[in-house]
Amino acid sequence: MTDTPDRSDEDPDDAIIRATYRALSSHGYADLTMKRIADEYGKSTAAIHYHYDTKDDLLAAFLDFVIGQFKDAVHAVETTDPEERLELLLDQLLVKANDHPDLLIAMLEMRSQAPYNEPFRERFQQNDAYVRYLLETVINQGIDAGVFADADAEHVARVLMTIVDGARARAVVLDQETALSTGRRAAAEYVAATLEHRPEN
Amino acid sequence: MTDTPDRSDEDPDDAIIRATYRALSSHGYADLTMKRIADEYGKSTAAIHYHYDTKDDLLAAFLDFVIGQFKDAVHAVETTDPEERLELLLDQLLVKANDHPDLLIAMLEMRSQAPYNEPFRERFQQNDAYVRYLLETVINQGIDAGVFADADAEHVARVLMTIVDGARARAVVLDQETALSTGRRAAAEYVAATLEHRPEN
Repeated sequence: MTDTPDRSDEDPDDAIIRATYRALSSHGYADLTMKRIADEYGKSTAAIHYHYDTKDDLLAAFLDFVIGQFKDAVHAVETTDPEERLELLLDQLLVKANDHPDLLIAMLEMRSQAPYNEPFRERFQQNDAYVRYLLETVINQGIDAGVFADADAEHVARVLMTIVDGARARAVVLDQETALSTGRRAAAEYVAATLEHRPEN
Repeated sequence: MTDTPDRSDEDPDDAIIRATYRALSSHGYADLTMKRIADEYGKSTAAIHYHYDTKDDLLAAFLDFVIGQFKDAVHAVETTDPEERLELLLDQLLVKANDHPDLLIAMLEMRSQAPYNEPFRERFQQNDAYVRYLLETVINQGIDAGVFADADAEHVARVLMTIVDGARARAVVLDQETALSTGRRAAAEYVAATLEHRPEN
């Protein structure tokens, strides 16, 4: 997501999503209003309502956009080597998150609303299932190829996502610059402990 | 925290904190108002404002109460055996949390507001530092006693808290009953990988 000005030939949906991102960055989720998004969009709230009935509809579309960007980044990972691919996935989840600290804050606010907001909850659940599937697949490929030790790939993927979610939350809640790097190191240690071959005793 | 009715001889502060808990459980943080807390308290909002100037003052006091309850529970852990003490601390952090799912939801909402709310942020940071100190202390005791392998106790404590925060967030956001038990298993695996003595190769 770049901060370039909206071009006049840009898709209105894209321009509104980018305006939503800027408004979320400036005001946070709790103080987000259609008026503030419209101000960033440079048009009236009516122009936004023409595309999205409610603020929650727009935010659900915003989540789809963020999740889509993540999927694009993952698809750009071309290596098929299981060890390298797992490392690059963990970098995407725990290192690249540093690039957009204001997005991490807004996402934690939206995540905390999941119990009250079904469209949010569905998107977070689907995205989590998707990322766990990616992790499980690469772990099972490594086990099949003999580069990883035999392990419960489904459980390992869940633990890695627990570390990812914990590190991201701590970066926001505790304002800790080191939270993501601690999480990255923890993920590497957990992978080493569960997936590295150990000498037979 | 119990759901017993307020007794007439109860400390007003305690009664208001309990009313806040019930209002948070019913409405969540985002829809919490002084009026709703007063309804639970059975008195006017003025009676609450006599004790707390603002809703945020009251919620900061509520956080102090929740953190105090956790400290009391930790102090009740009497064993000094490092291995057993570490297990019991992790049970407090990851198993007992199951007892109050509505409190987990409200706490995640308040945690997500930490970037905007300094009194919240200070309390979460202080509580995190306190729990990490407890974990580090018991880990260092175990290392000194020779029951744990030599390790970076400060880092291990940070990783365990990353797992705790991740598991609690996932229990709320993804509505996953298994999130806390996955976190407890991950913590045990991480402790085994970093603190158990390994045979020399």
